[in-house]
Amino acid sequence: MLYAFDLFGVFVFAVSGALVAARKQLDWLGALVLAAVTAVGGGTLRDLLLARHPLVWFSDAHYLLTIALAVAATWVWGRQRPVPKRALLVADAAGLSLFTVVGTQVALTQGQGAVIAVLLGITTGAAGGAIRDVLCAEVPLVLRQEIYATAAAAGGLLFVLLTGLGLPAAAAALVAMAAVFALRLAAIYRDWHLPRYRLRAEGE
Amino acid sequence: MLYAFDLFGVFVFAVSGALVAARKQLDWLGALVLAAVTAVGGGTLRDLLLARHPLVWFSDAHYLLTIALAVAATWVWGRQRPVPKRALLVADAAGLSLFTVVGTQVALTQGQGAVIAVLLGITTGAAGGAIRDVLCAEVPLVLRQEIYATAAAAGGLLFVLLTGLGLPAAAAALVAMAAVFALRLAAIYRDWHLPRYRLRAEGE
Amino acid sequence: MLYAFDLFGVFVFAVSGALVAARKQLDWLGALVLAAVTAVGGGTLRDLLLARHPLVWFSDAHYLLTIALAVAATWVWGRQRPVPKRALLVADAAGLSLFTVVGTQVALTQGQGAVIAVLLGITTGAAGGAIRDVLCAEVPLVLRQEIYATAAAAGGLLFVLLTGLGLPAAAAALVAMAAVFALRLAAIYRDWHLPRYRLRAEGE
Repeated sequence: MLYAFDLFGVFVFAVSGALVAARKQLDWLGALVLAAVTAVGGGTLRDLLLARHPLVWFSDAHYLLTIALAVAATWVWGRQRPVPKRALLVADAAGLSLFTVVGTQVALTQGQGAVIAVLLGITTGAAGGAIRDVLCAEVPLVLRQEIYATAAAAGGLLFVLLTGLGLPAAAAALVAMAAVFALRLAAIYRDWHLPRYRLRAEGE
Repeated sequence: MLYAFDLFGVFVFAVSGALVAARKQLDWLGALVLAAVTAVGGGTLRDLLLARHPLVWFSDAHYLLTIALAVAATWVWGRQRPVPKRALLVADAAGLSLFTVVGTQVALTQGQGAVIAVLLGITTGAAGGAIRDVLCAEVPLVLRQEIYATAAAAGGLLFVLLTGLGLPAAAAALVAMAAVFALRLAAIYRDWHLPRYRLRAEGE
Repeated sequence: MLYAFDLFGVFVFAVSGALVAARKQLDWLGALVLAAVTAVGGGTLRDLLLARHPLVWFSDAHYLLTIALAVAATWVWGRQRPVPKRALLVADAAGLSLFTVVGTQVALTQGQGAVIAVLLGITTGAAGGAIRDVLCAEVPLVLRQEIYATAAAAGGLLFVLLTGLGLPAAAAALVAMAAVFALRLAAIYRDWHLPRYRLRAEGE
């Protein structure tokens, strides 16, 4: 179950990388590189922080195949009909939902406490997209978009809470993922936001 | 003593992250994320390079509490009076001073030689701020500001030298930190600088 | 042999970092930092992904000496005659050729399969330059330049193929490096390129 979520997260983050690659007019290999870095970046950083070796995509070919499939599928789909403007944000939101919960669960099974598990969940969910955006010399969505870290934190906490209350992990994961995704969609389509972190600045 | 320096470095780098977050109009969770990445980035990279696991902020809650406290304290302070233009540079300079020396000492206690210890000190001191700036799509201070890597290198060398001469680590650390901080302040307020690395370029 | 290629790669990537440092008007220490990060970045990331410790430049001083030598040699050379516009691209291409093949071979000797070995080769070859460009707030060559990831992938595959066919590693490495370098030079001077990854986008 966790495995299926993880691969689905790889797929949607690879799609987000492919969409950015098209905007940036990369060639096919460049698109594959950007999709791969986006898709495995979050989980790889999590595993480096946890000293969890070997990395899963070294030994399991499904990860790389999923990335190649996502780049091809995005191309087939995006040749036939115009890609909606918000497709990138929605694919990224799906990846954030999936990876945050997967990352939180991985950290819990590695024996981390709740707070660190949620932080590693946020890291897993946000880092791949951040690497994608930094490579394109843009400020990452996690800093630009409101209710991004917030949505991930809420989802990680919800997962810890629900499994702590005895809910089966699969059910807790589905609820937490739905919560992250719903919060992000509300931020994207309804312009929900949180109060800004504001200081009084001297005239610069 | 080392521990107190490390937490104080976390505090001032978290302040620097919060100041950038306010400039970039992030929301509260975004500010926490940026402050946390800035504060633990340097030490985390050092520990990954040294294969030093588990990461200290996984098991010691004081690190995360210090970050939260720094973000809140910056807000309380910055709501009441205008934030001086150079507050960011000064907070960053304080963090660079503390983390460079802490990083150098950690590398020495891990059995590294003097040169690598100083390099890991510079890495510890400069990486958190560099990650902060890269995430905001800006050229890091370590490359933009003169006498930055220079100040860190001088501080690391001074610490190695003084402890090598038999000075107690705490005294050597204080002297080395003061040197880094003084060099950075001179660069910020007096516009001290080193010769540029200059080549003759063909008209581009 | 591998060792000589690795040091030569460190040299040319350090040159590329020094050339960028001169363009960005860094001071001498900043130029050393940028050259060092460019030169050891790719191999360090590869070794972190492979959990291969301790890092080679911790214990072997030739790496750091090579970097210092490259920065000094670039300065001596670039003071006397104008630096050609494409010197940076050519130095980067040389580094990509050397590190891609070295990285592929390191991964093979660590017991990785052919696909992962080629991916780690691309990572070794492309990451140092990508870090250099990201620190300068620019889109990395691996995404901007056509036939970059492609050239690295071709070189890695060629090396795997030729050693698989029984060619001695040194001969296979020379052929594969020449192929990567030739492909990059063709892209730089002849404007060779691959088809773009193109989608139909809604008017943004």
